[in-house]
Amino acid sequence: MKKVAVVGIGSTKFTKETLQIESLLLESTKNVFDNTSNLSQDLIDAVIVSTNNNSKYLGAILSELSGIKPKISHTVEHLCSSGTTAIISGYSYIASGLVDTVLITGADIVGNSGQVLDWDKSRGEFNYPIFWASLFTKAHKREFNTTEEELAIVSAKNHRQAIDNPNAYSHKPYTISEIMNSKNVTDDLRILDCSYPCSGSSSVLLASEEYAKKFTDQPIWITGIGQKTNSASFTKNELTTLTSTKTAANTAYNMSKITSDKIDVAEIHDAFSVCELMAVEDLQLTEKSMGATFVRNLFNTEDRKINPRGGLIGAGHPLGATGVSQLIEITQQLQGKAKNRQVTNAEKGIIHNMSAAATSSTVLILSS
Amino acid sequence: MKKVAVVGIGSTKFTKETLQIESLLLESTKNVFDNTSNLSQDLIDAVIVSTNNNSKYLGAILSELSGIKPKISHTVEHLCSSGTTAIISGYSYIASGLVDTVLITGADIVGNSGQVLDWDKSRGEFNYPIFWASLFTKAHKREFNTTEEELAIVSAKNHRQAIDNPNAYSHKPYTISEIMNSKNVTDDLRILDCSYPCSGSSSVLLASEEYAKKFTDQPIWITGIGQKTNSASFTKNELTTLTSTKTAANTAYNMSKITSDKIDVAEIHDAFSVCELMAVEDLQLTEKSMGATFVRNLFNTEDRKINPRGGLIGAGHPLGATGVSQLIEITQQLQGKAKNRQVTNAEKGIIHNMSAAATSSTVLILSS
Repeated sequence: MKKVAVVGIGSTKFTKETLQIESLLLESTKNVFDNTSNLSQDLIDAVIVSTNNNSKYLGAILSELSGIKPKISHTVEHLCSSGTTAIISGYSYIASGLVDTVLITGADIVGNSGQVLDWDKSRGEFNYPIFWASLFTKAHKREFNTTEEELAIVSAKNHRQAIDNPNAYSHKPYTISEIMNSKNVTDDLRILDCSYPCSGSSSVLLASEEYAKKFTDQPIWITGIGQKTNSASFTKNELTTLTSTKTAANTAYNMSKITSDKIDVAEIHDAFSVCELMAVEDLQLTEKSMGATFVRNLFNTEDRKINPRGGLIGAGHPLGATGVSQLIEITQQLQGKAKNRQVTNAEKGIIHNMSAAATSSTVLILSS
Repeated sequence: MKKVAVVGIGSTKFTKETLQIESLLLESTKNVFDNTSNLSQDLIDAVIVSTNNNSKYLGAILSELSGIKPKISHTVEHLCSSGTTAIISGYSYIASGLVDTVLITGADIVGNSGQVLDWDKSRGEFNYPIFWASLFTKAHKREFNTTEEELAIVSAKNHRQAIDNPNAYSHKPYTISEIMNSKNVTDDLRILDCSYPCSGSSSVLLASEEYAKKFTDQPIWITGIGQKTNSASFTKNELTTLTSTKTAANTAYNMSKITSDKIDVAEIHDAFSVCELMAVEDLQLTEKSMGATFVRNLFNTEDRKINPRGGLIGAGHPLGATGVSQLIEITQQLQGKAKNRQVTNAEKGIIHNMSAAATSSTVLILSS
């Protein structure tokens, strides 16, 4: 199998404005050209768009707008984890030897159609993600005595970290008290426990080992890939474990031949505050039941190990872009280019991206 | 690179009825289980849905409905060539070593959103595919003196061949005269020159060499892959050459190390009658300008080499299913299981699938 590296990155700012999907895709793609030495259109073999947008043929449209005539182009959709799913597609096009370079651009706009779980709705009233998150939160409180303050700490930490992320949709800090007193959306979740749907686009350029050196002297290697889909319906899930995340993490750790104690920095899918507490456990970054204590300690010591760019809660959640923006952050961290967000001596990173109450998850492991 | 084979097939009937996308996906997937020895849900590593339908998370939904818990699942969209694009994704997941088996199920329903070219519409009034096909036809008549009768022969041949395809949307034969006297839709195209949008679903199971023998003693190997996207807008195209098809064909022939004279049977994207005349030339199955003579000869000798199942005109065109149904036909031909449709001594086959006026094309070469 050929080795595959991240060799270029680009992004738009994440924003609450409603923008055009085509413009967003183009803007972050242009940003890759601005950021990447020696890159020209003819060096891009494949263009994959990850999005939940209903527009068709966006792979070809983005290619035409940006002057690329790729061998392979198409759209990938898998709800909130569309971004990392497209990355795995791009990885396999290179690893299989079909192509040497793949551009992946993810984007969604405010109000996109991926935010309503039409499928799950057929099983009851739970047609917005907040409902499964609320069930997860209640179950977490019951099983682990998780407090409102512990949930609020996730949000306070991630909003604080987002201040140093120039592309975050908000740079406003929130105190634990402000979060705990924000508007109740359900019995167990407040508005500041939730990530914010927004408009945004993020791009990465992947390349084979042979081509990587053309573009960068700091390629970041994708060394572990795990993915798992258990169902489409959260009603079939365990409520205090992200089961698909656990499976995907095991696959990714095995492939990369490292254990979780080697991870220096992590991008985690904190669609809601409870998700971060569950994910740090299910990725084996701490013991089961210790998620809240682990995150509180990071908050108190200002350790940015988890979600240095602010996560989904702090940076925003434009569905198709989210997984790609996670890969950009880990790339910058492992290159030592994360500026005020930099985690010291970051050599190995992990990405966790999931869809629909973790009915499916992606875990990627990166290495400098 | 690992070798990849088609080891299982399944399909629904193509129909003019409006059906549910989930039911269609499930029905052809179930048909794969009915048709494939030793197949159980736990042996399927990845589930890819190819469709233009706006429903989200269909990879996970199909997985849940059919009892599969895949490592990888997602939707692929690339307009009319979504099916072969998903096949290339599946191929690369296996060839890269990430997985050993991939189920690809393509489906669309009557009135799906891929039939209107919203993007091209921004450049003028040509918002339905019939308009580019009409320009192609007028240009073909001018350059090659193509006659109305030569166009009608494509449709007559493909409708006649569809009679022996149990899944075709229509089993009605049409005479050349009936076709030439059918309703005018544009100056240069009649209703019977057009493929018919319909509801339908088709599935294939791909496997690595190691796994292939578990399921079949007649694996059909994918030996050549070519794909090219030149633009998203037919206004940038040549009008008498399928440029992306030519490029994709060259790539596929090179990869498979064969020349076009070795091809025994072809599935060709006859969205409109003129497309078949152009494609047989651009795939090098005949000389440039000889497409009409070539197809007339096949018609007169009842040679089924081109579009034995009736093509898109005869069998119907449920967008996301079309490329997958083409692979099913070539698989059956190379296995000698095509019954009344069988081409004698078929050992090598080619598939041509394209999107939006051949702004992009896929070419696949298969070998027994």
